[in-house]
Amino acid sequence: MTKRNALILMSGGIDSSTLLAYIIDKGFTPYILSFDYSQRNKVEIEKVKEFVKDYDIKMHKILKANFGDIGGSALTDNIEVPKDAFDASSPEDEIPVTYVPARNTIFLSYAVAVAETLKIQDIFFGAHIYDYSNYPDCRPEYIEAFEKMANLGTEMGVTGKKISINAPFVKMSKADIVKIGLGLNVDYSKTLSCYDPSEGVSCGHCDACIIRKKAFEENGVQDPIKYL
Amino acid sequence: MTKRNALILMSGGIDSSTLLAYIIDKGFTPYILSFDYSQRNKVEIEKVKEFVKDYDIKMHKILKANFGDIGGSALTDNIEVPKDAFDASSPEDEIPVTYVPARNTIFLSYAVAVAETLKIQDIFFGAHIYDYSNYPDCRPEYIEAFEKMANLGTEMGVTGKKISINAPFVKMSKADIVKIGLGLNVDYSKTLSCYDPSEGVSCGHCDACIIRKKAFEENGVQDPIKYL
Repeated sequence: MTKRNALILMSGGIDSSTLLAYIIDKGFTPYILSFDYSQRNKVEIEKVKEFVKDYDIKMHKILKANFGDIGGSALTDNIEVPKDAFDASSPEDEIPVTYVPARNTIFLSYAVAVAETLKIQDIFFGAHIYDYSNYPDCRPEYIEAFEKMANLGTEMGVTGKKISINAPFVKMSKADIVKIGLGLNVDYSKTLSCYDPSEGVSCGHCDACIIRKKAFEENGVQDPIKYL
Repeated sequence: MTKRNALILMSGGIDSSTLLAYIIDKGFTPYILSFDYSQRNKVEIEKVKEFVKDYDIKMHKILKANFGDIGGSALTDNIEVPKDAFDASSPEDEIPVTYVPARNTIFLSYAVAVAETLKIQDIFFGAHIYDYSNYPDCRPEYIEAFEKMANLGTEMGVTGKKISINAPFVKMSKADIVKIGLGLNVDYSKTLSCYDPSEGVSCGHCDACIIRKKAFEENGVQDPIKYL
């Protein structure tokens, strides 16, 4: 079987790190795209560089995306990250303040530009709705609409080399994703999920930390990272 | 009538400059978004700043968008801009090398992020297909698909404050647009269309210059800018 190239969006978190191992296991040759977007948890860029060293990677491009000048989110602006606020048994009705306006749309748009330049038809990203049902840009109907738009708006799309936006974990829980990663020997000690780390150490109290810890617990294994 | 806010993408060219005058005439309060995207014709940013001085503008945000690290186009990469190659009587079949992969998608994605932060529902951009039938991301079906995606992927969209992506010139020719602008006293001496200007002076031979000159000729007026 000829290996097929894939462009994967990687943030250094559990989802995209697992996804990298997953697409390699499925026979794809990965090209990686990460973003430096004025994020509060900027240390994730260093984490992702360290993580990918375990794999044979043809390209790891880190693009600057200008969210600092847009604002509007606790992850990029001077808004406090909520602590000990996540209640898994009672999903929130409102979109959380850690939602970054149009973030996935901007990331995926850059991915389409890079994919078109490299003639790569498969784009992968680690979105999933189970734990994040209030992030509008993680839902299957959004992903489907993005793919349609991308194919109408690009040279590849209109010339019949269809671009696929793949989010294979979209209907999984974080625990399901960790289970896949454990089966693929993903080194989770080199990942970071925290929205508000101090000198690279996770806070343990933001939504992302709470969801992460629960995912490991549900798999009956110890989360290999340290918390404050 | 209460004035409605609108976010407009402005490049300093004829289309977006005319569009600014057009939406003001229609009663909108304009907020402007421009991009510094490693473009060969970077002087257009200075032109747009000069142009908007004639109007009462609440906000003019200039975002850096990272196309230089993506490449793949004559406008952002080390690819030659074609000269004296445009033949208006025989539309090209191929997408020109001045097509920038996913440019409009990235610009519109940032616009959605800014619009969401400012709670602006109307986004305007100057795309039109008549002279640019081979740019996939200027076609009405693309714009419609983008709008659908944007509403599925944003807090505004899912909470019922629908985002509209408006391209009122989409089916007009450049001559039609100039006609509108002349009627609205647009100062075209402060606009720039050239893909490859030298010290701010238009080359007169790239596709954009040829199309621009023809649009003024068809209106029977002198183009007020200088050419090399």
